[in-house]
Amino acid sequence: MAESDKFSVAIVGGGLVGSLAAVYCAKRGWKVDVYEARRDPRLESVDSGRSINLALSVRGISALKKAGVDEKILSNMIPMKGRLIHSMDGKLSSQPYGIFGECINSVDRMMMNKHLLDSAEAYPNVKLHFHHELNQCDFDNQKATFTKKDGSSVTVKADIMIGADGVYSRTRQQLMRKSRINFSQQYIDHAWVELAIPPTAEGEYAMDAHHLHIWPRQTFMMIALPNLDKSFTVTLFMPWSKFDAIKTEQDLLTFFRDTFPDSIPFMGEQLLVANYFKNIKGSLAQIKCRPYHYQDKVVIIGDAAHAMVPFYGQGMNCGMEDCIVLDDMFTKHLGDLSSPASLGPSGPAVAAALEEYSENRNPDAEAMCDLAMYNYVEMRSSVTKPEYLFRKKVEGWLHKIFPKTIIPLYTMVSFSRIPYAEALRRWNRQTAWFDGARTIGQLLAGASISVAVLALIVGRIPKIEIMLKK
Amino acid sequence: MAESDKFSVAIVGGGLVGSLAAVYCAKRGWKVDVYEARRDPRLESVDSGRSINLALSVRGISALKKAGVDEKILSNMIPMKGRLIHSMDGKLSSQPYGIFGECINSVDRMMMNKHLLDSAEAYPNVKLHFHHELNQCDFDNQKATFTKKDGSSVTVKADIMIGADGVYSRTRQQLMRKSRINFSQQYIDHAWVELAIPPTAEGEYAMDAHHLHIWPRQTFMMIALPNLDKSFTVTLFMPWSKFDAIKTEQDLLTFFRDTFPDSIPFMGEQLLVANYFKNIKGSLAQIKCRPYHYQDKVVIIGDAAHAMVPFYGQGMNCGMEDCIVLDDMFTKHLGDLSSPASLGPSGPAVAAALEEYSENRNPDAEAMCDLAMYNYVEMRSSVTKPEYLFRKKVEGWLHKIFPKTIIPLYTMVSFSRIPYAEALRRWNRQTAWFDGARTIGQLLAGASISVAVLALIVGRIPKIEIMLKK
Repeated sequence: MAESDKFSVAIVGGGLVGSLAAVYCAKRGWKVDVYEARRDPRLESVDSGRSINLALSVRGISALKKAGVDEKILSNMIPMKGRLIHSMDGKLSSQPYGIFGECINSVDRMMMNKHLLDSAEAYPNVKLHFHHELNQCDFDNQKATFTKKDGSSVTVKADIMIGADGVYSRTRQQLMRKSRINFSQQYIDHAWVELAIPPTAEGEYAMDAHHLHIWPRQTFMMIALPNLDKSFTVTLFMPWSKFDAIKTEQDLLTFFRDTFPDSIPFMGEQLLVANYFKNIKGSLAQIKCRPYHYQDKVVIIGDAAHAMVPFYGQGMNCGMEDCIVLDDMFTKHLGDLSSPASLGPSGPAVAAALEEYSENRNPDAEAMCDLAMYNYVEMRSSVTKPEYLFRKKVEGWLHKIFPKTIIPLYTMVSFSRIPYAEALRRWNRQTAWFDGARTIGQLLAGASISVAVLALIVGRIPKIEIMLKK
Repeated sequence: MAESDKFSVAIVGGGLVGSLAAVYCAKRGWKVDVYEARRDPRLESVDSGRSINLALSVRGISALKKAGVDEKILSNMIPMKGRLIHSMDGKLSSQPYGIFGECINSVDRMMMNKHLLDSAEAYPNVKLHFHHELNQCDFDNQKATFTKKDGSSVTVKADIMIGADGVYSRTRQQLMRKSRINFSQQYIDHAWVELAIPPTAEGEYAMDAHHLHIWPRQTFMMIALPNLDKSFTVTLFMPWSKFDAIKTEQDLLTFFRDTFPDSIPFMGEQLLVANYFKNIKGSLAQIKCRPYHYQDKVVIIGDAAHAMVPFYGQGMNCGMEDCIVLDDMFTKHLGDLSSPASLGPSGPAVAAALEEYSENRNPDAEAMCDLAMYNYVEMRSSVTKPEYLFRKKVEGWLHKIFPKTIIPLYTMVSFSRIPYAEALRRWNRQTAWFDGARTIGQLLAGASISVAVLALIVGRIPKIEIMLKK
C-alpha cells in the first residue's frame, strides 16, 4: 500500500499518553504523526513544571505490556510495598498496600517519556514533530494547524486526530467549539510544591526506599517517593492560605520544625529553603467532560479528557489504560491488527469505535476523578484513625478468605483492571455491608447489656420483696 | 472634578444587563464606557439569534425601578395571569400564577434594550461604543483590547471592568485564564426553535393574550407568549433526536397534526413550515462558575456569570437583579451615591465590594440555575398531573391563610425578591411538610381501615362461636 493511501492519525501531545498511543496506532500499520508543542526531551532537558516521579501500578503496566514497551520501564522502577506513616513524634508505621504483598512503583517521568518516544519512533510509520503547538482544528475537513518554533504555521491533514495534550488541552478546547460538550473544571483550595531529600553522605537512601512516605497532618500532608539515584522527591500539599502565610525563611523553618520535624535532617535546612522558595506552587484541579469524541474525526484521551487530583496516583495509569480501551474499541469495530478493515477503516466504523469508547470510558474516568478527590482525605487524615485501620484489617482478612468477593478499594484501583466505576460501586456495597455488620454488632452488644441489666433487676426483685417484708 | 480623574468603569456588553448596569454606574457619577461587539440596535435591525420576547417579573421590575428606567417598559408590556394548558384534545385549562392575581409580563427584548441604551446614553458621563469586540484583557494593568469593525484594535484603561457579555462571555474566558475559577457547562439534550402565530384576519389575538400558552407533551412542549402587535411568539422545545427526525414538510405537518393539532389553524401551515425550516435550532446550556470577580479589577454579571435554561423565565430577571445586588455592595463598601468615597473609591474597598458580591450572589444564581432545570419537567409534564395540581391548590389555600409562612415556589421566585437560594430551601422544607402530612394522612386512613376490619372480625367472633356450638 502506498504511504499516502494509509489511514493516518495525528496525535496531539507527545507526553506519556500521546507517545504510548502512537505505539498502539503504529502497530495497526497506520501512518502516525505526533505533534508536541515542547522540544524533544531526549535532546535537551525540559522543565515541564510537572512532578519528577510517578507511581506506576497495574493499569499502567498492563498498557505498557500490551504495547510491548514495558521491559525497560519495569527494570528501572522502585517497588513501594506500602505507606510509611510519619507521626508528629517521629514514630513510623508501615501500612502495606496489598494483602498479598502487591506494590506500586516509583518511576521517573522523563525516563519513561524518553523510552516511549524512542519506542514510537522505532516504527517506520511514525514521525515525531516537536515544537509544533496546536493552533486550531477544522475537524470537518480533518485538518489541523500548528504553530512552529519560528512562528510559521503548518496545516496537516489526517483521517483521525487523537488529543493527548494534557490538562490545558487545546484539542479539547477546539472540540468544545465544534460540539456540545458538557464540561466542568473544579479547583481545590490546596496547592503543592516539590522539595527533595538527597542521598546521605554515604550515598544511601535517607529513609526506607520501599515505601511511599506520608506525613499526614489532618488538613494537609507531605509525601515522598524514592528515585533510582537514592534521593526522594518530596511533595508538600496544603491550603493556599498556609502557603501565603510563609513569607520568610524563618516562617518556613518554624513551620517545618512544628509539623515535619523528622524530615528536616533528611532535607537539610538550606536545600529545603532553596527548593521551597524557588519551586513553583502548583494549583490542583479536576476536569471532567463528555463526550470525548466528535464523529469519526477526533477523540481526546488522558488528562485532556479527565484531569484528576494526584492523590490516588492514577492520573497516568488511567491515561495509559485509555490506550488499551481505545485499542479494544478499534479492534471491536475495525477488526484486529491483521484485518484489512483495520488498515483502511470506514468513517462509520471509526465513528462507532470512538462513540463506544467515549460512552464506555467516561463513567470510569469520572469515577476515578471522584476517588482521587476522596483519597486526599484518606491520605492526609484517615490513615491515622483507628476506625480506618480497623476496617482495613477486617477487609484484608476477608479478602484473604474470599479473594474475589471482598476486595479492598485500593486493591481494586491499583492492583486490578476492574473498571473504576465498578470498583466504586463494589466499594460502596462493601461499605454498606461493613456499616450494617457494625450496626448489628452494636445492637447485639446493646442487647447483651440490656439482658444483663434485666437479669440483674429480675435477680434483685425477690431481694426487694424480702426487704419490703422485713 | 476633571473628567480624567473620575473613577472609570468599562462595561463589556450592551445587552439588557450591560445597559442597565451602565445606568447604575452612571448614577454614581463614574465615567462609564459600554463596549458592544454588535452594531447599535437603534440604528439597524439586529438579528441576535435570541428570543424575541421575554417574561419580566418582580426582580427585573425592581431593578428597572431602582434605576428609574421602568416607566416606558411597564407601559409596553402584556401581563400574563397564568398558564393556559392546551391538551391534546384541544381542551384549555387556566392555571393562575399567583393566588392574589399576580402576573408575569411579556415584553419585547429589542424595545427594552433600545430603551435601556437610550437611558444610559442620556447621562453625560456614559459613552456607548458599538462594533467593539473584546479581544483580551490585562486585568493587572486595568487594560482591555477591543477589535473594531475595520479590524483595527483599541486598548482602553478603566478602573474596573464589568463583564455583561452573555453566555459566551469573553470576559469570563479572560478571567478564567487569570484566576482559579470553578466552572461547569452542561448541555441538555433538548433544543428549541422559534415559530409564530400571527394576528387573525380581523387583526386580533388568535388566542387569549393574558396567558402564557403551554402545550405540555411530557417529553417535550411548545409555549407561546403574546406580543403587542397581536401576534404570539411560539417556541418549540424538544429533544434533538425529534428535530433530527423531521426532514420534510410532510414530516413536520404530520408531527404537528399528531401533537399540537389546535395550533395549526392559528399558525397556518405555510408559515409554520417556513419558520420551522428557516429558523435556527438553538441548544440549551447551563453555565455556573465561581468566583465572579478578580481582586478590584473585574466582575462578571448576568448570563456571563450564570447562564440558565429558559424554563423559569428568570434569566433576564436574575441578570437585572444582579445590578441591584452589585449596587448594594458598592453602597455598603463605598458609601451611597452622594458620598465622595463612591466617586473615587479605593482599591481595597472595591475589592471588598466585588468579593462580597461574588460570595453573596453565587449561591443564589446557582440555585436559580437548578430551579430553571427543574421547571422544564414541571412545564412539560407535571402541570398535567393530579398530584401537582392538588399540591398547588393546597399551597394556594395555605398561602392565603399564612401569606408569609407558606409561599408557593413560583410566587417566591417570580413575585418576590426572596433570595433564590432561600426560596429553594423554603420550598424543600415545604415539600418535606407536605410529604409528611400526606404520609400521616395515609397512616390515619390506613389505621381507620384497620380498626374497621378489626371491629368487623371481633364482631364476628361470637357468631363463629355460635356456629361452632351448633
